[in-house]
Amino acid sequence: MNLAAAVARQRELATTLFDQLRRDGLDEPGVSRDPYGPGEQRAHATVTAIAQRLGLRIEHDTAANLYMTLPGRDPQAKRVIVGSHLDSVPHGGNFDGAAGVVAGLVAVAALQHAGITLDRDLTVMGIRAEESIWFQVSYIGSRGALGTLPDGALDVRRIDTDRTLAEHITDCGGDPDALRGRARALDPARIDAYLELHIEQAPSLVEAGMPVAVCTGIPGNFRYPDARIEGSHDHVGLPRRFRRDAAMAGAEFAMALDALWEAHEAKGVPMACTIGRFHTDTATHGLTIVPGAFHFSLDVRAYDEAVLGELDQKVDAIIASIEQRRGVRFHRGPKAHAAVGQVDPEIRSALEDCATELGIPALQLGSPASHDAAAFAASGVPMGMIFVRNENGSHNPREAMTMDDFMAGASLLTQFLARRYPAASTPRDSSATAARRG
Amino acid sequence: MNLAAAVARQRELATTLFDQLRRDGLDEPGVSRDPYGPGEQRAHATVTAIAQRLGLRIEHDTAANLYMTLPGRDPQAKRVIVGSHLDSVPHGGNFDGAAGVVAGLVAVAALQHAGITLDRDLTVMGIRAEESIWFQVSYIGSRGALGTLPDGALDVRRIDTDRTLAEHITDCGGDPDALRGRARALDPARIDAYLELHIEQAPSLVEAGMPVAVCTGIPGNFRYPDARIEGSHDHVGLPRRFRRDAAMAGAEFAMALDALWEAHEAKGVPMACTIGRFHTDTATHGLTIVPGAFHFSLDVRAYDEAVLGELDQKVDAIIASIEQRRGVRFHRGPKAHAAVGQVDPEIRSALEDCATELGIPALQLGSPASHDAAAFAASGVPMGMIFVRNENGSHNPREAMTMDDFMAGASLLTQFLARRYPAASTPRDSSATAARRG
Repeated sequence: MNLAAAVARQRELATTLFDQLRRDGLDEPGVSRDPYGPGEQRAHATVTAIAQRLGLRIEHDTAANLYMTLPGRDPQAKRVIVGSHLDSVPHGGNFDGAAGVVAGLVAVAALQHAGITLDRDLTVMGIRAEESIWFQVSYIGSRGALGTLPDGALDVRRIDTDRTLAEHITDCGGDPDALRGRARALDPARIDAYLELHIEQAPSLVEAGMPVAVCTGIPGNFRYPDARIEGSHDHVGLPRRFRRDAAMAGAEFAMALDALWEAHEAKGVPMACTIGRFHTDTATHGLTIVPGAFHFSLDVRAYDEAVLGELDQKVDAIIASIEQRRGVRFHRGPKAHAAVGQVDPEIRSALEDCATELGIPALQLGSPASHDAAAFAASGVPMGMIFVRNENGSHNPREAMTMDDFMAGASLLTQFLARRYPAASTPRDSSATAARRG
Repeated sequence: MNLAAAVARQRELATTLFDQLRRDGLDEPGVSRDPYGPGEQRAHATVTAIAQRLGLRIEHDTAANLYMTLPGRDPQAKRVIVGSHLDSVPHGGNFDGAAGVVAGLVAVAALQHAGITLDRDLTVMGIRAEESIWFQVSYIGSRGALGTLPDGALDVRRIDTDRTLAEHITDCGGDPDALRGRARALDPARIDAYLELHIEQAPSLVEAGMPVAVCTGIPGNFRYPDARIEGSHDHVGLPRRFRRDAAMAGAEFAMALDALWEAHEAKGVPMACTIGRFHTDTATHGLTIVPGAFHFSLDVRAYDEAVLGELDQKVDAIIASIEQRRGVRFHRGPKAHAAVGQVDPEIRSALEDCATELGIPALQLGSPASHDAAAFAASGVPMGMIFVRNENGSHNPREAMTMDDFMAGASLLTQFLARRYPAASTPRDSSATAARRG
């Protein structure tokens, strides 16, 4: 049977799965799949039930990630992993993360339906805790599996529960002590490739009028999650020359970064800069008080480590200049850094070829956001990503991916797997396949 | 006896009074003389006791303001009022407000000591509730006396007690029902002049190395106490061209106002602009979210109604430009306006002449802050003010006025009164004076 037709037959599976995941996570407005909490747990249960129906082998690691494996011809060959995360931001959309896991299961079902066995094991991975808003740590599940969690990560507290990551992992059947010992469930040398399908978190595909994109890179970043500016609280009548206004210093900092971004854009150097928290001190601010304290967070991202290093220096120079002119003091607080996620050139080019073959228009697109795929790339696993068109952004309940576009992305993924890992075709009604599909 | 020498003799009176007021209001750090509450009441009692010792006539009005009158030769002539407020901000300094009342009593005592009777009644006024932080209404006492309290003022609640202004006034022996009927204790047509001495609330005198200043005007203002910007909450990876970042819009707004201020300063046109509250939405902001909501307050002040009108238009133009370029929407919320307090040119020039006569270096200075004097000017009463050098700003416990500087200011005030309202000299040991001084 034609593989594309076999994928198309899985549309109902995908729709049913998305609907159930939405019901599981419902937290109006939107869905909340809180990592290592009830929301994410329900998603894991739903996905596991489908995987069992497809006859996949179910496993978990010490970080409580979910592995659903379709055995291939040679169990000794390096396996291929298709994955994404099953958590969401609070009141987020239904597709961010989950679409990648659903796409993996659609690929499995389509291969089974078409009677295609790969030359190696295909593992669909439901990854834990990707959204950094909860624990303010990136890629917890994937880095847990790869043994690359940063020091201290297990002791950070979830912002809403105030309980540690270690406690949350224990709740979900994981083993934080093993993670502290850097036990790793995944050996990068034993993985041939990591593939991830994800909704686009910007409207570039909407703007281009195309259903999918092949990822050209995942940005690295540096972050100051908890910075502040110290000035002087003063009377509203204080003349300008005497002021040490922390909020004006914050405004100048934001504008300088915005100008930096605009200049990079004009030069065609992609980057992004987000000041998500940006606020006077709610305990002391007031209509007639010059603000003496200001707080902000900063996330600066780029696709090239050299660009990132240069931006880091520019931020330092901007701060020094503002401090000198405005008589304020910046306290940057802790700094975090995530490496640029390099896409494997062979995988990227194979994905582009498959899109051409299937007649699916595919944009080449730098990832707007961070993804678990970057953690795999950082560990040396060849990595590739597919983005699916999505309106209204993500991390909000209004995200809107059509099933047509999703199925195009899933088809591209399945085609890639079949082309890269050919083994043998078995007739659709063979007893082995029938047994697996139970 | 020489009048300046008679003033100098009152230094102990002033020191004793300030010390007692500090003890009355002590609320570490600093003093809290809460308006229409125990802090302000204790200050009124202390000041009243001194006024009684000086033999002054004590009266109160329906707003519970305190009038302490030294009779002059002609009780039918328009009286002169010297006043200031006896409340403070929470944990404020001892001199903000109180210095003006103490200066009035020093002037009275010095005139008595020098045996000088004025041609008309001199009333020292202890004004209620000037600090707008408590009820978020300006000039409550003075506007209550002048019958110009804004509609609804009596029903606002004090931010700490949550009780209405009417209830607080009743507590202190006032009559809110009479105030609702716009009964006024003071007829502007029956007041020749209102004088107020106040510590400077900026360090201009410290910078200039001068002890006192003659006020050239009190700023008017327009305010948006509760404005907000509506943008779109989006994912940290959203490219710049798609963003509707409310915080960046706020930053650009702040920088545009700062530039406007800098330009006015360069042209020598005094103004001030304060954005006291300036913040992302603490319920929804986060490290990886483009801010879709931003809140701010704005206070713009100037000494000329035409400048104020022009600034108002410029703020509108800045908002329109940012809305258009950044795809955000400003919601200004309620708008408040306070008229410019014009200083009477004759009073100002007489104060300058007196300073020259006394050899006291006096700066000409636009008031950095708002004062009850502006409420008198708005009602048509000729008004003048004297500022006394003060380090470390005001509205904080670190305010620092020296007694030398205070006595220079009090001397200038007394000299002005004696020069403007000459009647007759009586010998220091006359029976009338002796009787008054008890």
